[in-house]
Amino acid sequence: MKFEGKIVENKLNKRVEGSITAILDVLYGKVSIFTLSRHFEKANQDTSELVDIDEGEEINYREVIIHRRGQPLIYALSLIVLDRCKEEARQDIIDGEIPLGKLLKKYKVESRREIQHIYIEKPNATLKELFKTSEDFISRNYVVIENEEVTLWTKESFPISYFSDKM
Amino acid sequence: MKFEGKIVENKLNKRVEGSITAILDVLYGKVSIFTLSRHFEKANQDTSELVDIDEGEEINYREVIIHRRGQPLIYALSLIVLDRCKEEARQDIIDGEIPLGKLLKKYKVESRREIQHIYIEKPNATLKELFKTSEDFISRNYVVIENEEVTLWTKESFPISYFSDKM
Repeated sequence: MKFEGKIVENKLNKRVEGSITAILDVLYGKVSIFTLSRHFEKANQDTSELVDIDEGEEINYREVIIHRRGQPLIYALSLIVLDRCKEEARQDIIDGEIPLGKLLKKYKVESRREIQHIYIEKPNATLKELFKTSEDFISRNYVVIENEEVTLWTKESFPISYFSDKM
Repeated sequence: MKFEGKIVENKLNKRVEGSITAILDVLYGKVSIFTLSRHFEKANQDTSELVDIDEGEEINYREVIIHRRGQPLIYALSLIVLDRCKEEARQDIIDGEIPLGKLLKKYKVESRREIQHIYIEKPNATLKELFKTSEDFISRNYVVIENEEVTLWTKESFPISYFSDKM
């Protein structure tokens, strides 16, 4: 149970290597957001079903690229029901500068994620341009649930080659 | 917002390829557990601090290898405070046949994970033997929190090469 290893940050002060940095970035989530679109809209029939609200209610729409030092990692489209989110988190959600996963951490939100679909699709023109590839993309749709209510629906996509054989 | 892609499962009926299967396994989490040790023990000074209980209280101790078709993916040591877990999940936790992450899903547990340390260490004899490598391992310690209480503490380790450069 003893803490056997050296903490990575300390080790890194002495030797900074590419591969370790990449690992850390993933583990620590040192990623940035590039916002493609961000606005409020009234829920239509489709979107109201996705987040389990009535048509005409307000949705916070957010379309972003998560990237690390300019390299796109994930395209993400989110529909957020702001009223169901922790009050203190709402301004950060609207600002849209922080990935939603990080906000869950920042505001110590207890939640669960329910994955709805995982599928393979051809990239549209935007994804091709952003990721500079025309290979197949893998996409997944999921909802985040807090207090047994859907707070957000997300579609995430990334090129299929982003997975290695091992992981 | 339309559902554009084909669902992967359907596609797979037609063409099952190694790389896609690997992706799916990860995304779907089709992994198994090999149990190294599993028992109840009284918390000592160290372990009681890790899960925030009093010394002498009972801890469910679980040491496993998560593997996929025999290939070890992650070594995990968990200390579980059974009394704080959802009542209906407890028997499954004791049985130890299902990864804890899957149990959180199965029982629709709303929780959050707080990572405490990430570090690099040399594998001990057991890890060397199990993973058939003597390379550095990356380890992380984290707690899972439900209702603002620690339900479990986990240390996970895997060979550093399990990360690709891209991800």
